[in-house]
Amino acid sequence: MNYRMVFYNIGRILLVEAALLVFPAIGAIIYGESTLTAFALTIAALTAAGLTAVRKKPKKNTIYAKDGYVIVALTWILMSLFGALPFFISGYIPNFVDAFFETVSGFTTTGSTILREIESLPKSLLFWRSFTHWIGGMGILVFVIAIMPKTESTSMHVMRAEVPGPTVGKLVSKLRASARILYGIYCILTAIEIIFLLAGGMPLFDSIVTSFATAGTGGFAILNNSIEGYNSIYAEMVIAVFMLIFGVNFNLYYMIFIKQWKQALKSEELRWYAGIVTASVLIIALSLMTTKYSVGDSFRHAFFQVSSIITTTGFSTVNFDTWPVIAKLILVFLMFAGACAGSTGGGIKISRLIILVKSGLRDIKKAINPRSVETVKVDRHTVDEPVVKSVSVFFGTYMLVAAASMLIIAIDGRDITTTATSVIACIGNIGPGLGAVGPYGNFADFSVLSKLVLSFDMLAGRLELIPMLMLFSPYAWSRKYS
Amino acid sequence: MNYRMVFYNIGRILLVEAALLVFPAIGAIIYGESTLTAFALTIAALTAAGLTAVRKKPKKNTIYAKDGYVIVALTWILMSLFGALPFFISGYIPNFVDAFFETVSGFTTTGSTILREIESLPKSLLFWRSFTHWIGGMGILVFVIAIMPKTESTSMHVMRAEVPGPTVGKLVSKLRASARILYGIYCILTAIEIIFLLAGGMPLFDSIVTSFATAGTGGFAILNNSIEGYNSIYAEMVIAVFMLIFGVNFNLYYMIFIKQWKQALKSEELRWYAGIVTASVLIIALSLMTTKYSVGDSFRHAFFQVSSIITTTGFSTVNFDTWPVIAKLILVFLMFAGACAGSTGGGIKISRLIILVKSGLRDIKKAINPRSVETVKVDRHTVDEPVVKSVSVFFGTYMLVAAASMLIIAIDGRDITTTATSVIACIGNIGPGLGAVGPYGNFADFSVLSKLVLSFDMLAGRLELIPMLMLFSPYAWSRKYS
Repeated sequence: MNYRMVFYNIGRILLVEAALLVFPAIGAIIYGESTLTAFALTIAALTAAGLTAVRKKPKKNTIYAKDGYVIVALTWILMSLFGALPFFISGYIPNFVDAFFETVSGFTTTGSTILREIESLPKSLLFWRSFTHWIGGMGILVFVIAIMPKTESTSMHVMRAEVPGPTVGKLVSKLRASARILYGIYCILTAIEIIFLLAGGMPLFDSIVTSFATAGTGGFAILNNSIEGYNSIYAEMVIAVFMLIFGVNFNLYYMIFIKQWKQALKSEELRWYAGIVTASVLIIALSLMTTKYSVGDSFRHAFFQVSSIITTTGFSTVNFDTWPVIAKLILVFLMFAGACAGSTGGGIKISRLIILVKSGLRDIKKAINPRSVETVKVDRHTVDEPVVKSVSVFFGTYMLVAAASMLIIAIDGRDITTTATSVIACIGNIGPGLGAVGPYGNFADFSVLSKLVLSFDMLAGRLELIPMLMLFSPYAWSRKYS
Repeated sequence: MNYRMVFYNIGRILLVEAALLVFPAIGAIIYGESTLTAFALTIAALTAAGLTAVRKKPKKNTIYAKDGYVIVALTWILMSLFGALPFFISGYIPNFVDAFFETVSGFTTTGSTILREIESLPKSLLFWRSFTHWIGGMGILVFVIAIMPKTESTSMHVMRAEVPGPTVGKLVSKLRASARILYGIYCILTAIEIIFLLAGGMPLFDSIVTSFATAGTGGFAILNNSIEGYNSIYAEMVIAVFMLIFGVNFNLYYMIFIKQWKQALKSEELRWYAGIVTASVLIIALSLMTTKYSVGDSFRHAFFQVSSIITTTGFSTVNFDTWPVIAKLILVFLMFAGACAGSTGGGIKISRLIILVKSGLRDIKKAINPRSVETVKVDRHTVDEPVVKSVSVFFGTYMLVAAASMLIIAIDGRDITTTATSVIACIGNIGPGLGAVGPYGNFADFSVLSKLVLSFDMLAGRLELIPMLMLFSPYAWSRKYS
């Protein structure tokens, strides 16, 4: 491994985090909060660590795949360790593992919380908590790519580890320029949501942090009752629509930006996404009508929760843990499915599901007619066989990591629904699960080991497994490249 | 499709079923039971249907893959439809869907039951119920291959659809001879188990039907409390060991038969199987010690249940639904895993898991070092890439079928654990799940739709998905082959 290159890059990103922490620090000054010291100390620590790391410029500028993965994995871990300091130093989350969990949950845009009571946190900490979603949202490194002077190949590798989902597509070509455009789209969409929420009468601070959490498809709310606390159908609908918007592949917005409307709307992934959302809303709404809900409320709650779960945001407007089993089951499957590749959402991703389903059908066809030559096609293009295989392997690995995690969490001895869905909610970067980790619950009561495993799951899910898993490989740490 | 060929083959098998039904009919005579009429009518119906189908010999003797799959799928469905008649006509299972479910559960060696009360059934029906396990065990068609005069290629295709798991291996070469040998081994092992059980004082009838259910890794017991009802540690240990024996790849017994001891013991699948069993027993026993159980009882119950679940037999000696969550979770994972390929067990199969894990590791290696050339090796042989891919696709398809089934079962509105584990228990051919379908529960209270879906799952799981899924493909029913 090119250690110096890795340190240098991580150092730069830590300096960026220091700069980002200035915003909540300013907030602490404006609101006259005692958290200012905690932010100042964190900024100082990050600056010291960052400057130490960037002191020596790397001699060789070449960077290989494994360096890229190591940079990505270590960056997210270190940013979370430092990002946890304001919560810890200020004393509002007195246990460091809890603070780390909360920050990982923020940066990975998961939204699972260990806080039993949210509203008593000072505003500057609430801002930082939601801001981590926004920063994590587009991927810290897509963000960093846009401002880092690097060779094309470097960015390529980082991009491959970072951009969620199997299709990077057009974006790769003119990477840095594209990244800036994407980042611009991200900012504009966030700004539009803030305006819409303000227009409905939501306070400015709430509008900003809620939009941060929507944009990153994170799900941290600043009210104990999440979005339900606003008791506003208007706000719910705005947020539901924006969650769906942020769950779409950003390539499509890029295409629209370069005026390729038609191609964007033809996207198969977009159509499946729309189809799955529509079907899920219909079935859940029907099942809710059989309970206490009116027709209108059934559709309202179904639409909001489907949007919240498939995009892996995790906002709630109702305790869906009490819903009929078919509604809960659909939500659990949506947790696995996740949003579109290349969005800020987590989960397995719709594009992978398309390839899984199509390769399954292809194998059946091939079994009954061995002479047939069938390829898996998405958007009328043949998907290369290595991609088909790696998608299936990804799915298998995802399941194995989830299963292994559940076994460790099970040591805590909590019920099977809580145990299973806590892992699904974390590895899929959703936020709430069912049972004790449902919308009205939290992750506070897990053991330290479980919290660390769930933190690992959040990172593994967010970084598409490989960067986190390879940290366990001795090869990743060797200086050799072959 | 070569319809005449398909009819002809199915006809022959229905005649075989008629012959097999003579055994319980004789039982009805011996015990002087009123079920004799029901058996006689069923035998008559089968003979009529069989003779009609074999009347016209097919002109073309060639048989293609899709014909083979159709024969397999239709055979299992028809055998179950006819096999359900004795239960239905005799009035002991008055609902035909229930009788069909019970028979599918028998032939697929699942062991899930809709009976709330088993002991009141006449002995001839109990015998037939357990006998279906034994018949299903080695696969009706492996059985039929040995007595059917056919071309090598025909048998090949049927074999591919029938033999559980991805590795058919050596067996394919001299197929008919090998099938006879396998069948001999199966009979001898069953006989040995009967002797062992008799030696421990179990009545003859009980020893026979229990051994049938063990050999097929089925799990139908004739006592309401399953094996717990015998209250005999000796019987439990004999059954536990024989379940494990029938969960081993029969190729290995064949190798031992042709005196290739060393190669048999080197089998990677066998080692994983032994390793998983040992690890699971240890962890579950440890978790049980924290409850009311003594150290001895912890190991006894852990060993029996792990053996019962990983081999997908489903006998119970205790209500494991009350066990600690880590024990339950391990059992659920073992339900997915299943036994070795080429055994009578169900599930995904250990050999597939090995390939899944290894291809996952390979992909990680390849990601961090794109220049490396890594192949997946099992038993020191490279696994062909199409096999690796199809294993991953199989896993994905398995999960998708399970997920789709859960959604339909969920309409019944039962709790999420019951809903999810009923499907897992059926598609994996295990028998009991957790919750209302746990060891002390049964499948009686599901709706007709759910019972049909679960029957489909049992067949799909037993026939390795493709034969059942392709029944929905229009191509399977066309006369064309390309």
